[in-house]
Order: sequence, then C-alpha cells, then structure tokens
Amino acid sequence: MALQALAFDTFGTVVDWRSSIIRELEDFGKAQGVQRDWAAFADDWRAGYPPAMDRVRRGELPWTKIDDLHRMILVDLLAKAGITADSDTLDHLNRAWHRLDPWPDAVPGLTRLKRKFVITTLSNGNVSLLTNMAKRAALPWDCVISAELFRHYKPDPEAYLGCAELLDVAPGELMLVAAHASDLRGAKRAGLMTAWVDRPLEYGEGRRRPSRIADGEFDVMAADFIDLADRLGA
Amino acid sequence: MALQALAFDTFGTVVDWRSSIIRELEDFGKAQGVQRDWAAFADDWRAGYPPAMDRVRRGELPWTKIDDLHRMILVDLLAKAGITADSDTLDHLNRAWHRLDPWPDAVPGLTRLKRKFVITTLSNGNVSLLTNMAKRAALPWDCVISAELFRHYKPDPEAYLGCAELLDVAPGELMLVAAHASDLRGAKRAGLMTAWVDRPLEYGEGRRRPSRIADGEFDVMAADFIDLADRLGA
Repeated sequence: MALQALAFDTFGTVVDWRSSIIRELEDFGKAQGVQRDWAAFADDWRAGYPPAMDRVRRGELPWTKIDDLHRMILVDLLAKAGITADSDTLDHLNRAWHRLDPWPDAVPGLTRLKRKFVITTLSNGNVSLLTNMAKRAALPWDCVISAELFRHYKPDPEAYLGCAELLDVAPGELMLVAAHASDLRGAKRAGLMTAWVDRPLEYGEGRRRPSRIADGEFDVMAADFIDLADRLGA
Repeated sequence: MALQALAFDTFGTVVDWRSSIIRELEDFGKAQGVQRDWAAFADDWRAGYPPAMDRVRRGELPWTKIDDLHRMILVDLLAKAGITADSDTLDHLNRAWHRLDPWPDAVPGLTRLKRKFVITTLSNGNVSLLTNMAKRAALPWDCVISAELFRHYKPDPEAYLGCAELLDVAPGELMLVAAHASDLRGAKRAGLMTAWVDRPLEYGEGRRRPSRIADGEFDVMAADFIDLADRLGA
C-alpha cells in the first residue's frame, strides 16, 4: 500500500502550546493586575486535560468539546489561585488555545509535505479551535479533522479509523504524525502508519520527558517536519 | 449579530461541474473508443443526484455518500448507453467529481473573503471529494465541512445548524453562499444569513434556469465572488 495522507496531532506536535499559553496568561495577569507563576499555571492547565478527557471517555461527562473542558479546568485553577474575572475575559483567555504559535519548522515542513500528500489535522481539539488556529498561524491544511467529528478522543480507535474513512483511504495508507508515543501507539493499533517527531522543548527548556520508544516501534523517527519531508521524499 | 463565517455550496456555486464533467467524459470516450452525446450524459448524471439523495432522505437507502451515489447513477447510465468498462476505469471516471474546475472568479474572490471571514465548504459532496477538489483547484478553505459529517443532505436543517455548531457561531453569524434558491431557502429556515450568487452558465450557454427569487428574499444578491467580496467589505 502506498502512503496517501498524513494526519497530524497538533498540541505539542505542530504548535508550541506552552510558551503560547504562558504569554497569554502573562497578558491576562497584566490586564487584571495579578501576578502568579504563569508557567506553572500553564502546566497545570495542560495537565488537567487528559483526566478531563478520561471523564468523557468513561461516560461521567456527556460528549464535551475541548473548548469546554479547557474552560472547566481554567475556572477551577483561577478559583484555586484566588483570581476572579468576568465571563468575557474568561472566554477570551480560554480561546488562547486557538492562538498557539507553530514550531518554526511547522509551516515550511507542511508546505513541502502538502505537495506529495493530503495533509490534515487529527487532533482532540475541536473544529473551531483547529480552524482558528490554522487561520492565524497560516497552517496549510487540506482539511480539518477533529476527534469532535467522531465524538471519540484519541487514542480511541474510532478517531483514527474515522479519519481514514473521511479521507477515503485504507488505515495503512494514512500516517499519524505526533510527538507523543501514546497517540502513535493508538494509531498503530488501528492499523495506521506512524511517524514520531521530536519536540524536545514541548514542556520547556531542560524539561524533556523520557519517551521510551522501542527500536523500530514506529515507521519513521524524525527530528522535525523538515526532516520528515526529507524522509518521505516530499 | 456580526457576520463571522461564510459557508459555500460547491457544485455550480464554486465549481463549473458541467464543463468539467463533459471534458472528463470526452476523455473517457476517447480512451474507450466510444462516442456519445457527452453533454447530455453529463446532464443526466447530474439529474440523477437529487432523486438519489431523496432515497437516502426517505430512508430507502442507508446513509450513502455522494461518491457512492454518483457511482450508482453512472453504472446505470453506462448500462443504458451500452458502454462497458472495468472497475478501475469506472472509479477513475466517477472521481471526475473530485476534479471540477472553479469558476474564474472563485479563487480570487475566496482569497479576499478569507481575509475578513472564516470560509468553509458546506456541500453535499463528501469530505474526500471536497478535499481533493480543493487541493487540485487551490481553493483556500479554512476548513472542509460536508453533509457527510451530519449524515443529512442539504436542505435538511441539520446540515446548516451542524455547520454553525462546528464553527462555534450562532446561525445568524453564518452566511450560506449558493447559486441555488432551494439551498438558500433551507439555510434561511435554519436561521442563517444568505447570499445568492448568479451562475448563468451552470447548465450551459443559453440554458439558464429561471430562479424566481422574490425581492429581498435573500440578504445579498451578488454577480460573482468578487462582487460578493465588494458587498461584504472584504
């Protein structure tokens, strides 16, 4: 089977969520006249998201999109930090996740890969989040596919298989590109090809997490999107 | 409410399906060594599509995407015309609907409109069809939304309301752009804004269909996408 399409995880893989969210929180703090450890706040906000998705996965919450999960976590963290803000201010801050900056190699790498393959998002972020993010950051997607369309968060198999079905390709003709082994393992179990991309700065300078990837576990190991384009002949 | 996003019908509104399909049928005829009235064949192929969607709408067929409806109609028309072809040849010909050329104003008009609004497809065509069409024709969509995502063909309200929900805008903040009154009336009933675009050549030179649009029935009446951009201040 020939590779037809590439589906990209976004948070951490395409965009640098941490430095973008810290910047937005600093702006929020200045506007509100409050000072906190915004880097720690950003990390806590992000850390709240896998357990929130698990609540959806277990059926404790009905289907809830990431914008709404992010807002629940944010309200909770602000309360714990003793910060109050009006609803419009909260909405704007919550949509910081729509305004994440791409890693420097993302747009040039995607532009090359798009010449040879269909390129899409395959993110747990909702469609409006991914659309607004792409528009602001000029990410050249051929289409925008989200877990929201399947009402199943990755790494549930429905997300990977639903993506292949919408693109009308076999699972083996679709490659997930991600910086996270758990996501790639979910894709591999669903029959997709897999490309791991190194993002050593995702959690901040000097805070690289161990990846524990076995030799040959994924089809491609790439340093960044330029290297991925080289390896895929794009 | 301020207009946030524009959703575009595609067949006839963005792309010139008729001349593109005639060209593909002529290529097919040459390759197969058969000669027919390909313009009439194209019109019959297109004419088979609303009744096929009605069969899905009435539940006589389970959800069936347009690629598969197009193929059912094609197989039937070829049989009636006494033409046989192998399955790969049929698949390639059927995907002619992925290779439709845009009207000359479509790309420059969309490029202007994209600066001010989120622009998406809202077509009865399936996601892979719309994605392949956009890639080939360089249509600069912010995202690709299809009736396939809602398993409801336009003008069912679920398609218009589902599009607004995915974009996270109120129905009144979303405008359907289409060359067909029935589609626009469905959008209006669902609470969307509406822009009619004139496509006098959709059914061929000198074969314009009467439109019977009441004065003031739609929010905007535009000659083409450049005129639409002018009228919307984009």
